[in-house]
Amino acid sequence: MTTRRDFLQKLTATAISFPFTAHAIQPKSIAVAEPYQGPVLRVAIMGLGSYANRVAEAMRDCKKAAITGVISGTPSKIKDWQGKYNIPEKNCYNYDNFDRIKDNKDIDAVYIITPNALHHPQCLRVAAAGKHVICEKPMAVNAREGQEMVDACKKARVKLLIGYRMHFEAKTLEVLRMRNAGELGKVLFFEGHSGFQIGNPNQWRMNKALSGGGAMMDIGIYSVNGARYMIGEEPIWVTAQETKTDPVKFKEGIDETILFQFGFPSGAVASCLSTYSMNYLDRFFLNGEKGYAMLQPATGYGPIEGRSHKGEFKHPHITHQTTQMDEMAEIILNNKKPVVPVDGEEGLKDMKIIDAIYEAVRSGKRIDLRL
Amino acid sequence: MTTRRDFLQKLTATAISFPFTAHAIQPKSIAVAEPYQGPVLRVAIMGLGSYANRVAEAMRDCKKAAITGVISGTPSKIKDWQGKYNIPEKNCYNYDNFDRIKDNKDIDAVYIITPNALHHPQCLRVAAAGKHVICEKPMAVNAREGQEMVDACKKARVKLLIGYRMHFEAKTLEVLRMRNAGELGKVLFFEGHSGFQIGNPNQWRMNKALSGGGAMMDIGIYSVNGARYMIGEEPIWVTAQETKTDPVKFKEGIDETILFQFGFPSGAVASCLSTYSMNYLDRFFLNGEKGYAMLQPATGYGPIEGRSHKGEFKHPHITHQTTQMDEMAEIILNNKKPVVPVDGEEGLKDMKIIDAIYEAVRSGKRIDLRL
Repeated sequence: MTTRRDFLQKLTATAISFPFTAHAIQPKSIAVAEPYQGPVLRVAIMGLGSYANRVAEAMRDCKKAAITGVISGTPSKIKDWQGKYNIPEKNCYNYDNFDRIKDNKDIDAVYIITPNALHHPQCLRVAAAGKHVICEKPMAVNAREGQEMVDACKKARVKLLIGYRMHFEAKTLEVLRMRNAGELGKVLFFEGHSGFQIGNPNQWRMNKALSGGGAMMDIGIYSVNGARYMIGEEPIWVTAQETKTDPVKFKEGIDETILFQFGFPSGAVASCLSTYSMNYLDRFFLNGEKGYAMLQPATGYGPIEGRSHKGEFKHPHITHQTTQMDEMAEIILNNKKPVVPVDGEEGLKDMKIIDAIYEAVRSGKRIDLRL
Repeated sequence: MTTRRDFLQKLTATAISFPFTAHAIQPKSIAVAEPYQGPVLRVAIMGLGSYANRVAEAMRDCKKAAITGVISGTPSKIKDWQGKYNIPEKNCYNYDNFDRIKDNKDIDAVYIITPNALHHPQCLRVAAAGKHVICEKPMAVNAREGQEMVDACKKARVKLLIGYRMHFEAKTLEVLRMRNAGELGKVLFFEGHSGFQIGNPNQWRMNKALSGGGAMMDIGIYSVNGARYMIGEEPIWVTAQETKTDPVKFKEGIDETILFQFGFPSGAVASCLSTYSMNYLDRFFLNGEKGYAMLQPATGYGPIEGRSHKGEFKHPHITHQTTQMDEMAEIILNNKKPVVPVDGEEGLKDMKIIDAIYEAVRSGKRIDLRL
C-alpha cells in the first residue's frame, strides 16, 4: 500500500531510469555563494501532513525562507512541529481561529498543504487576513474556484503562488534553455507520463469531496503543466479518453487512467497519460526537428535524470522544495520573475485545462481551449 | 534527404537507445542446427526497389526460401538481379506478362514489394496465376481492397501472407512470452512511437495515388499492428488527432503526424504516434500492474533493443528478413502456425483500423471498431 509519504518517492524508485551513454553536458561552474543577509520570507504551514513534513525538512536548508508558524486541527502535530522547528505558541493556529493570523507580525505568508477541496476557502481566508498565499497544486478543484482565489488575492493585494516545484528544477530549466536556444529546432511533440499505483483506498485522494477528482488532479496535473512549459505555448484544443479497470477501488468521480492530447498554435502536439494504476512512468519527452530532450524520472522528488541528443545532463540535485521556497521568497519579497510563472494565473490555466479534459472525457469531443 | 534505402536504417541510428543497467536476461542456449534438407520455397520478387534489395540480400542466408524469379518494369534491374542471384531468363517477367508465371514450375510464391496502391491489382493477378502471395505492408490502401485480396487468394486456394517481419523477431517475441506468462501482471497500457523525418518529397510515398496516405500507411502501421500484438487483444474503439506543420511538403491526403488511441476489451489502452517529421522515435512500451517491457528501437532494421523490469534482453540479432522468409516458407509449405499471425486476415485487421483512424481524424469522433 502506498501512502502519501511514499508515493512521489516511489515514483522515483519505480520510474525507468535511462542510460547515459553519450558525452555528458557539464553545467556551468557554481559560484561560491556569500552568506545571505537579505530579508527572509516567514512562512506558516497550513496542514501538517506528510508533504508538509517534507517541505519543512527541506526548508531547513533555505536561506531566504523560514517556518515561523503552523496551522493544524491536530494539537499533537502542532506540539511536534513546535519542538522540531522552534515555533512559539503565539504562532500556532487551528482551523477555527487562523483568521487572527492577520495580526501576527511574524508571518508573511501561509503555505496551504491541505486536501484539494479545502484550498479555495482557506485561500480566501488567508487573503482576507492580508497574508501572501502559497498553495499546493492543484490550486483548487475547478477553474471557477481558481478564478475566485486569483480575484481574492488581487483584491487583498497579496501574492498567490502555486507549489510548482518543477519550475525551479535545474534539469527542467536546461530543457527550456535548449528549446529557447533553438537546439531542438522547431518543437513538434511532447509526451508526458504521470502516474503511480496508489495504495490505501481510504485516503482523502480517493474521496471526490476532498480531492475533486482522481489521478488527474493529483498526478496528471504534472503532465498538463509540463506540456505547457515544455512546448512553451498554451494549448488550443484538448481531447481525452478515460478507462477504468477497477471500478471498486476507483469510485464515481475518481479517475483511474486518462489519456489526453493537446494541440498548440504552432502545430505541435502533446500526448499524455495520467494514472493511479501503473508504476514505471514519470517521463517527459520533448521532440523537435533537430533533436530531443527528455526527463525520466521527470517529476519525482528524487534526482531528476535528463538527457538530450547532445548527451546527459549533469546538474547536481538540490532538494526541490528548498529551491522552491528560496525562489518563492524572492518572488514575494523582491518581485523576482521566475523562468516559468508560479502565480495564481498559472495555476488557473491548469485548472481550466483539467476542466476541459473532464469535459472531453464526458462528451467524447475535442474541446476548444481558445474560448 | 532520406531515401527508402536509408530510412528504416536511419530509424535505428536516430532512435534513442536505452540503457542496460539491470541484470541481463540470458536467452535460452541455441541448439546447433543440422543442415536443412527439407523443401525450399521458391520466390519471385515483384518490384526491385531498395527494400527488395534488402530482402534479397537477407535471403542469401535463408535455408528454407530462395529467390528463383523477378518481376520488374526496368530491364536493367532485371539484368542486375539475374547476375547477382543467378536467375534464368525464363523466370524474368515484366508487369505486362507476369500472368504467365502460372505456367512456371520454378516459382511457388511472389513477394510483392511495390508501391501500396499497386498491391491490390497485383495480388489479384498473382492469385489468379495460382501462386502464393507474400505482400509488403500495408497490404492495400484500404480495407475494401484488403478484403478483396483475402477473398481472391481464398478462391484461388493460394496463401496470402503480409510482410510483418517483427512477428518473428526474438525480442518482440520475448515481450509476448513475458506477457503471456503473467510477468507483467494485468496489461494496462501500450505506447507506440513510429516515425522518422522523410526526405525527398518526390518519392512515391508522398504521392497519395501510389501510397494511399502518408506516415500512417508507411510507418504508423507499425504502432497499429504493434498495439494489437503487444496488448494481445483487438481494439474496440479508436480516437485520432492529426496535425500538419508543413502543408507544402505534406500535400492533401498525405498525413504528416497523427496521434491515435485505442481501447481494448480488458480496459487496457494504447497511445500512439505516427509521423513523417520527427526522428528519435521508434519505441514500444508495454506496462502492466506488475512490470513493464519495452523495445527501443522497436521496429528498425538494426538490432532491436529490449528490456523489462527484470533487465535487458540479450537475444542475438538476426537479420529480420532472413528469419521472416524462412518462417514464411514453413507457413506456406508446412502450415506452420506463427506466434502472431501474418496472414491476409491479420493485414486486413490493420487496414480496417487505419480506415477508422482516418475516419476518426475526419469526424473528430471516437470510432467503434466492434461493428
